[in-house]
Amino acid sequence: MPVGELDREGNSSFMEDVFYPKSIAVIGASSDREKEMKSGWVGRLLQFGFKGRIYPINPKAKEILGLEAYPSIEEVPDSVDYVITVVPRHLVPRSLEECVSKGVRVVHIYTAGFSETGTKEGIQLQEELGKIIHTGKTRVIGPNCMGVYCPSGGLSFDIRFPKESGSITFISQTGVGGRRLINLATGRGLRFSKAVSYGNAIDLNGTDFLEYAVSDPETRLILLYLEGLTDGRRFFNLLRGCKKPVVLLKAGLSESGSGAVASHTASLAGSRRVWEALFKQTGAISVDTLEEAVEQMVALQTLPPIKSRRVGLVGRGGGIGVVATDICEREGLKVPQLEQETKNGLAGIIAADSGSTIRNPVEIGLGITGVSEHYVAGLKMVAADPKIDFVLTFLNPEDYLHYGVKGWAEDISKGLVKAKKTMSKPFAVVFLQGQNVDVFQSILQIQRECLKEGVGCFPSLDSAIKAISKLITYYQNRDE
Amino acid sequence: MPVGELDREGNSSFMEDVFYPKSIAVIGASSDREKEMKSGWVGRLLQFGFKGRIYPINPKAKEILGLEAYPSIEEVPDSVDYVITVVPRHLVPRSLEECVSKGVRVVHIYTAGFSETGTKEGIQLQEELGKIIHTGKTRVIGPNCMGVYCPSGGLSFDIRFPKESGSITFISQTGVGGRRLINLATGRGLRFSKAVSYGNAIDLNGTDFLEYAVSDPETRLILLYLEGLTDGRRFFNLLRGCKKPVVLLKAGLSESGSGAVASHTASLAGSRRVWEALFKQTGAISVDTLEEAVEQMVALQTLPPIKSRRVGLVGRGGGIGVVATDICEREGLKVPQLEQETKNGLAGIIAADSGSTIRNPVEIGLGITGVSEHYVAGLKMVAADPKIDFVLTFLNPEDYLHYGVKGWAEDISKGLVKAKKTMSKPFAVVFLQGQNVDVFQSILQIQRECLKEGVGCFPSLDSAIKAISKLITYYQNRDE
Repeated sequence: MPVGELDREGNSSFMEDVFYPKSIAVIGASSDREKEMKSGWVGRLLQFGFKGRIYPINPKAKEILGLEAYPSIEEVPDSVDYVITVVPRHLVPRSLEECVSKGVRVVHIYTAGFSETGTKEGIQLQEELGKIIHTGKTRVIGPNCMGVYCPSGGLSFDIRFPKESGSITFISQTGVGGRRLINLATGRGLRFSKAVSYGNAIDLNGTDFLEYAVSDPETRLILLYLEGLTDGRRFFNLLRGCKKPVVLLKAGLSESGSGAVASHTASLAGSRRVWEALFKQTGAISVDTLEEAVEQMVALQTLPPIKSRRVGLVGRGGGIGVVATDICEREGLKVPQLEQETKNGLAGIIAADSGSTIRNPVEIGLGITGVSEHYVAGLKMVAADPKIDFVLTFLNPEDYLHYGVKGWAEDISKGLVKAKKTMSKPFAVVFLQGQNVDVFQSILQIQRECLKEGVGCFPSLDSAIKAISKLITYYQNRDE
Repeated sequence: MPVGELDREGNSSFMEDVFYPKSIAVIGASSDREKEMKSGWVGRLLQFGFKGRIYPINPKAKEILGLEAYPSIEEVPDSVDYVITVVPRHLVPRSLEECVSKGVRVVHIYTAGFSETGTKEGIQLQEELGKIIHTGKTRVIGPNCMGVYCPSGGLSFDIRFPKESGSITFISQTGVGGRRLINLATGRGLRFSKAVSYGNAIDLNGTDFLEYAVSDPETRLILLYLEGLTDGRRFFNLLRGCKKPVVLLKAGLSESGSGAVASHTASLAGSRRVWEALFKQTGAISVDTLEEAVEQMVALQTLPPIKSRRVGLVGRGGGIGVVATDICEREGLKVPQLEQETKNGLAGIIAADSGSTIRNPVEIGLGITGVSEHYVAGLKMVAADPKIDFVLTFLNPEDYLHYGVKGWAEDISKGLVKAKKTMSKPFAVVFLQGQNVDVFQSILQIQRECLKEGVGCFPSLDSAIKAISKLITYYQNRDE
């Protein structure tokens, strides 16, 4: 448990109750069994495997999903660490008052329909919530948000998220987009320590969660999706002092984007100039989309610090190699000529009239012509070249189908892991995506297996090269 | 058949023999039945359904795949329109000589290992080929290339390509990359009239094929992958005079990229400055990757000319909408506020506390809460707004899985096609990609069905917005 965190009244570590509550009450749990199992929070907690006490609150029910229900939070006989309220918006102020009065530590307001609507009623309701929380020590997540995912705490806003814990903490002002990002990332094999979607942020905000993540020993990589901030100086200082990589998607920096932010989480987006300065001064890694964020995390979790920008490209398809080279230069990487010794070595394993080439970008077959041992040998030769800082290889699984190669998925997995283990330089892989379901399924599987062994796989040359270039910049800035 | 094309000796329309030969000989056909069926050209022609005469040439075989074989091209009793030679590189000059002497119209040299190797032997062999073709009227495709795909001519370098013809002509200096592009494009539902991979281009080059495509009545959209050119002025004039959209991937414009071009097809890449001027003066649409080329073709084949840059964004996920808005502005599109009347209309079909919004970007459910009729109605309202020039909607199929919606794929297809048919403005769709095999398969199917009905689907906000922005620029330039 990180030390030094105080709640509004000076009590320590309310964040412990955000991620590891021992008891949770759900205000507005449904007595309709099917509905509660499918989309209710009591159903989610039970299905995801929350180990603490659960109190369904419903004025008309005696029992919900086998648990004793209470007419109000005040009538729960024990203390309650954490409350999730899903009641309609006009009932939210009343339920929050009751939580404050009971001394609940944390309330997650799941309900939407507040300032983000831009309507007088929504804005007034949100102001009312703000006044209520200032009367007690209760801390609030939301409104208009998904809340918490913390596998080791047994808490998740989506029961299909992995129960396995990881080292990423994801702090998100968006809910639907946040869920999408977690699905994308976990599908690729990444794992989260914690994630939180905090919406309109009338109390706990991105900076609060960042402060926790910076000192949380379970967090080694931080991802932020931010629309707005109210305490920029504190945020800046936290980022600047953070020793862990921080990937930051700052949404709403365009003129219309800042308007969209107002109607999404009612935040002030801030000026592009200020945010660009922040990125420059803190070393936080800027990404533009959720998809880019995933690739950046794959790069950071699988690649060691790369000190310089000279890449050895290896893959099948001369034209694809030329395009890859152009992308590398656009993104600030170099594709140098190899040493003559390296070329001689490659010439020894590649037939001269096979359409292959011994120059960077290099073409070597992987299994297509039954020479996967050549492929691993070739990768090692390229990696050993003193002019090369790291190796990026690209593979098009549809080629294997084209040539009717059997067992290609296993062959590729083994070849890539073997290459990684025996190579002297950092190594990453691009799987060119296709329109074939079998190929798609095999790539998913290979990617996850590779990630376990520390081999990072990317879905396009473009995304891989961008992410690796930003990784190099990050480590160069850090070491300056 | 386009008129005005002359071969080296002034005979018309050799291009007819490139795409619609009546007889084909394969020099170097294998007598190993399995090998020839799997990777030989006689096997390909038979399996793809070539209707003309096929002459396998092999000095040791009497019969190949049921066809009478001949020891040499000279001993074929009839005239031969088209020859494919797959013999090892040192035998290519001899086979080309025989073709010239027989008066073959077109020879496709499939074999690699010439100037692209950068070796003395390879360069000398290629020079030898150049000398041979100047002794006769035979035209050459290659060497180091895949050759022709022309479904209506029964010709294909990959038997799995669709036999159905379309209106795209693809002219490609790369083979493996060219095959990848055709797989990507046809998997999305696009169809080709013709495609040619022409490699080192010792005779027929990109400009020759462009000239044909410009006047070919079956071609309505032209895609070029180019590494180098020798007759830039003619190429420029053709592009400038072309009334059809031309998408052009010029590879090798970076410093290292031009080196990679030399080792791929032994071309001169040319300077970035010259090519940028060409794009500006001809209106050809520049793309950087094969993936971008596919999205650009989807845009051109499904969207009418869009005159102005104001987009109505509709989709679920407020944060995703903010990110989409930022991307739009980066790519030169505007996301304007809607008229009050439009907002009033939307407010009538969207619940205030559902996390939806009536401002641009707009959130409306599609089927998730059982309201697909609202979705179509909402899209029509946004399209009817006088401040909006076109509508882009984004859908995340994983949301449907999350909520356990049954029959979502059919519901989406129907909803999108209905929306398209009843809307007053151009319309495009983004399917956010996920890591789920069922979702992937469903998206593939929906995309193809939508394309048939003229609804363009894109795999990411980024790719859709880039492609549409370039489409608008193209039509604006054309109409100036």
